[in-house]
Amino acid sequence: MAIVRVGFIELWVRDLEKSLEFYEGLLGFRLERKEGKSAYLRGYEELEWSLKLTQAELPAVRSLGFKVDERGMEEAQAWVEQEGLPHRLETDWGRPRMLRVQDPFGYPLVFYAGAEKLPRMLQEYHLYRGPGILRIDHLNLFSPEVERATRYYQERLGFRLTEYTEDEEGRLWASWLHRKGNVHDVAFTNGEGPRLHHFAYWLPDPMAILKAADILAGARRTNQIERGPGRHGISNAMFLYLKDPDGHRIELYTSDYLTVDPDLPPVRWSLNDPRRQTLWGHRTPKSWFLEGSLLLDLEGKPLPTRSSPLVGIPEHVT
Amino acid sequence: MAIVRVGFIELWVRDLEKSLEFYEGLLGFRLERKEGKSAYLRGYEELEWSLKLTQAELPAVRSLGFKVDERGMEEAQAWVEQEGLPHRLETDWGRPRMLRVQDPFGYPLVFYAGAEKLPRMLQEYHLYRGPGILRIDHLNLFSPEVERATRYYQERLGFRLTEYTEDEEGRLWASWLHRKGNVHDVAFTNGEGPRLHHFAYWLPDPMAILKAADILAGARRTNQIERGPGRHGISNAMFLYLKDPDGHRIELYTSDYLTVDPDLPPVRWSLNDPRRQTLWGHRTPKSWFLEGSLLLDLEGKPLPTRSSPLVGIPEHVT
Amino acid sequence: MAIVRVGFIELWVRDLEKSLEFYEGLLGFRLERKEGKSAYLRGYEELEWSLKLTQAELPAVRSLGFKVDERGMEEAQAWVEQEGLPHRLETDWGRPRMLRVQDPFGYPLVFYAGAEKLPRMLQEYHLYRGPGILRIDHLNLFSPEVERATRYYQERLGFRLTEYTEDEEGRLWASWLHRKGNVHDVAFTNGEGPRLHHFAYWLPDPMAILKAADILAGARRTNQIERGPGRHGISNAMFLYLKDPDGHRIELYTSDYLTVDPDLPPVRWSLNDPRRQTLWGHRTPKSWFLEGSLLLDLEGKPLPTRSSPLVGIPEHVT
Amino acid sequence: MAIVRVGFIELWVRDLEKSLEFYEGLLGFRLERKEGKSAYLRGYEELEWSLKLTQAELPAVRSLGFKVDERGMEEAQAWVEQEGLPHRLETDWGRPRMLRVQDPFGYPLVFYAGAEKLPRMLQEYHLYRGPGILRIDHLNLFSPEVERATRYYQERLGFRLTEYTEDEEGRLWASWLHRKGNVHDVAFTNGEGPRLHHFAYWLPDPMAILKAADILAGARRTNQIERGPGRHGISNAMFLYLKDPDGHRIELYTSDYLTVDPDLPPVRWSLNDPRRQTLWGHRTPKSWFLEGSLLLDLEGKPLPTRSSPLVGIPEHVT
Ligand SMILES: [Ca+2]
Ligand SMILES: [Fe+2]
Ligand SMILES: [Fe+2]
Ligand SMILES: [Fe+2]
Ligand SMILES: [Fe+2]
Repeated sequence: MAIVRVGFIELWVRDLEKSLEFYEGLLGFRLERKEGKSAYLRGYEELEWSLKLTQAELPAVRSLGFKVDERGMEEAQAWVEQEGLPHRLETDWGRPRMLRVQDPFGYPLVFYAGAEKLPRMLQEYHLYRGPGILRIDHLNLFSPEVERATRYYQERLGFRLTEYTEDEEGRLWASWLHRKGNVHDVAFTNGEGPRLHHFAYWLPDPMAILKAADILAGARRTNQIERGPGRHGISNAMFLYLKDPDGHRIELYTSDYLTVDPDLPPVRWSLNDPRRQTLWGHRTPKSWFLEGSLLLDLEGKPLPTRSSPLVGIPEHVT
Repeated sequence: MAIVRVGFIELWVRDLEKSLEFYEGLLGFRLERKEGKSAYLRGYEELEWSLKLTQAELPAVRSLGFKVDERGMEEAQAWVEQEGLPHRLETDWGRPRMLRVQDPFGYPLVFYAGAEKLPRMLQEYHLYRGPGILRIDHLNLFSPEVERATRYYQERLGFRLTEYTEDEEGRLWASWLHRKGNVHDVAFTNGEGPRLHHFAYWLPDPMAILKAADILAGARRTNQIERGPGRHGISNAMFLYLKDPDGHRIELYTSDYLTVDPDLPPVRWSLNDPRRQTLWGHRTPKSWFLEGSLLLDLEGKPLPTRSSPLVGIPEHVT
Repeated sequence: MAIVRVGFIELWVRDLEKSLEFYEGLLGFRLERKEGKSAYLRGYEELEWSLKLTQAELPAVRSLGFKVDERGMEEAQAWVEQEGLPHRLETDWGRPRMLRVQDPFGYPLVFYAGAEKLPRMLQEYHLYRGPGILRIDHLNLFSPEVERATRYYQERLGFRLTEYTEDEEGRLWASWLHRKGNVHDVAFTNGEGPRLHHFAYWLPDPMAILKAADILAGARRTNQIERGPGRHGISNAMFLYLKDPDGHRIELYTSDYLTVDPDLPPVRWSLNDPRRQTLWGHRTPKSWFLEGSLLLDLEGKPLPTRSSPLVGIPEHVT
Repeated sequence: MAIVRVGFIELWVRDLEKSLEFYEGLLGFRLERKEGKSAYLRGYEELEWSLKLTQAELPAVRSLGFKVDERGMEEAQAWVEQEGLPHRLETDWGRPRMLRVQDPFGYPLVFYAGAEKLPRMLQEYHLYRGPGILRIDHLNLFSPEVERATRYYQERLGFRLTEYTEDEEGRLWASWLHRKGNVHDVAFTNGEGPRLHHFAYWLPDPMAILKAADILAGARRTNQIERGPGRHGISNAMFLYLKDPDGHRIELYTSDYLTVDPDLPPVRWSLNDPRRQTLWGHRTPKSWFLEGSLLLDLEGKPLPTRSSPLVGIPEHVT
């Protein structure tokens, strides 16, 4: 399917003002519109909104948005009908054509083609605030069946594998899949699911990652720094993981690599390689393996989750 | 045509040792093979060689290489036959299937599918030398007929326009065209041609651009720094232009933006906008508008060039 | 004399709001107090104000402030009386003991001991704006008698020489003199004087220098970027020179070196060494050699200037 | 006493080649001389050697060197005689006048005045290797009597306090003391002692700190990364702690702040403030509180150590 890239995420949050104070106030996201209980935000490089926050009773993930071209929209339509998946046509602000679908694993996907363009801000550097959030980069999804989901997303949705984690018995614990030409648009991580593990935004360079940590520290919110700054072994990217006021995990991410080659060999990582999680050998906090965000079904009800048959978290955990 | 990305450049140089002292010694390219009068080099992210230097009587450009997939190889074959272009099948080190063709404008294109992979060096940071050259990013071509070349590369070769420079009368002076999802794989620049204006390599971040300038200065080779470091208005990238020992111009380049959206509106720049060449308003040296590298035909003879009907160089020149 | 370091500068500006829009709005200086026609600003590392802007009829330099310890205050008092220099005791906001003096060359020096401390902002990173101005670093003074001024500041005021520029005949064209342990607190530059050439603030790192240029470009104020970003040969620092709305020149500066060793050999530069002005060989705009700010005498009248017997500006000028 | 700054450290190592492979090969220190069982190294900014490695039976610290001026040399001589401290005049390579003394706490100090200058390498950027080690910055010493040592170093040796850690009962757990105008030349840390906790070198900027971690990771030596990269609360510096092949701890350090003001108020940190050790709230590994290097007496015998009456390590430990 002609998916172009990950396009947006919609989160349910319990206190919109508190969330905006985090995303707009500290991280410097551009708030483009507030309407009713929802707010629309974007990074400085983006011409479309990519983060929608909606005030609700419980924190959850409403939509995982993927941009498609015209052909992609038709393919998506054909796919949901063929598979008999729950779906619905929708619109949103500046998004006249959206197809909402609950995929076979429960993930609340939204495909959209076309979008109204917002003014170009990339070079309006005097208006940048925070570390300089540029654009949405990827979604990372908890799954109790990583192997099956990975195969399905490759075969039915056209994603391409760049890196993966295996144990000694050849069982797949995590996979990184892309459409847009860098390491991933979507990753699957072993664990209780379906849930969102995190969503990630691209920053201009590693110094911006450090600046984000400094900003959180300045604001006396180090408790929201879950992990990093560090350099991933997988993806080679510099990262920082933050928890938003509802516990949704956002990653600030930069400097992975180009993956457009059709003959690019996927990189295999052994489950207990200490350089996998952090190239520098840092241990990962336990919360990182356990905590995630609930997903919503088409009616806005939280999806039940189930635990994974692959139990045990890797070594190298704090 | 299913071109994946720019893949390599082959340069004729007059003194291979002097060239290697520049590319390998100062810039830190990895020298992967020396055989006869040729040397094969790559950046730290690349799994294939991307720079071939061949000692010859005169400095010139032998090949402008583009990576294609299987379908792309067939399409290229069909295209050259349909257009009746001079062409030849070739092989090179680790490149079993190459199609060399002189395009209608004279550019010596080489399409290749498949390539033997070299060991992954991206995370072998202890072996990095110089500013940390990562991968080939783009080719910039002088043309006396930018408008025609731009249209042809879009319509026949499948390139997509991201930015362009126009004068007040709507005449096209320069264009940026991509396949791989950032600002360009190929650009056309008005001027005497066909010639190569420059080729460019991606660096990890703006600090690496500054480091490259420091290295040239340390080696007392500031005369080889032609322009920069600076930030382009067009592409938003940080850049540094160097002249190699034969006068071939290489750009070190980083931090442009993602261009995969099918509805991405191309950015228009006015010819005399001072922020176009350098976002910071720097003037460009005259040499930058005049000097380029000769191209070779299939027999290895220099292609004649002609001047452009669009005369006059922009304001904002030193 | 026990001078500690350069401490502040007071500038006369014609439109305080316009100046604040530049210093506070674009460069992110912290505005700590506005009172009558004056504003007091500081960098994020400073515990005292370091920039005072006062609205007046003409742009000029009212004070060149130096922090002294108790002994320094007595020494300064003894010096002005011994030399019979025009002087006056003063106070200012948070500065209970200031000695204003017009030195033998006409420079309007102010020595001050003790100062009320402002809250520590260094680690309040969430409040940083602009490129992150940290602290005042140095003053650069035009003088038609660099050699005499340099000797006097060494012998009578206790400054120590770190670098200097000479022509082939051994005549001194410029000197860099310090108290605080980096390359300079004061520099003298040959030219019409006495005038201020520029004052400089320290930034955290070279990326911040680039960010400052981006901010000016974003605000469409590239005409206020006079020179840089670049790396000095002299001092090894990264720099950017800006003109404020009144034409006062401010340098953003970082990454020079430690100079506390008593046996540190001063670095000699030849007048026409291209690496002196910019390590990377960049040429310097003519304005940089000609334009400066007038100084005021104790009564607030502009000091007459005279041209230098050393005529001709260096090569390597655009 | 007129101490200028920390000047060098001499370490005993068990395998000089292995140590050089670490310090010169990975970290890029400049090896200036090898003679017998000793090697002399320096950073790129230094004009004197600052690290001496001597092959010996056991790993230990032979000398903690401080540069003094002429008056300082006389003061040091008077001090050792007055206090009746074990001492000896010595010379070393390029160091004609050294006074070795065991201070009242057991630390093996060496004062030296004058030194032969090595060629200036600061701007020889083409010769830089590794992350770009610039200069020695400070020594951190384990002490079971931090309060007494701190007072003595202030009162008898002229050090000035910039930051300190206290518990709720007002007991001093750590102190930072300087001479050269940044946060410290020497720090005392509560724990079994006298021992060396670590020595530190200044790097050009935070990106160099990240690069050092990448280099260790590339070389598959993450086990030698003990802590960081991170930003200290205390000192505000970016840091990385490494263990050398003998377990000596070296810190790579950059971007603290200017401390020359005589009225600079010392910064107080509470023992259990999570932002103290790492501004970002990172926990510190236990080894960091326990492991250190033995010191040698004038005869080259290891000094006995004793544990501290202040027991318990802070919270926020991994
Ligand atoms: Ca046209
Ligand atoms: Fe991620
Ligand atoms: Fe280019
Ligand atoms: Fe300056
Ligand atoms: Fe330290």
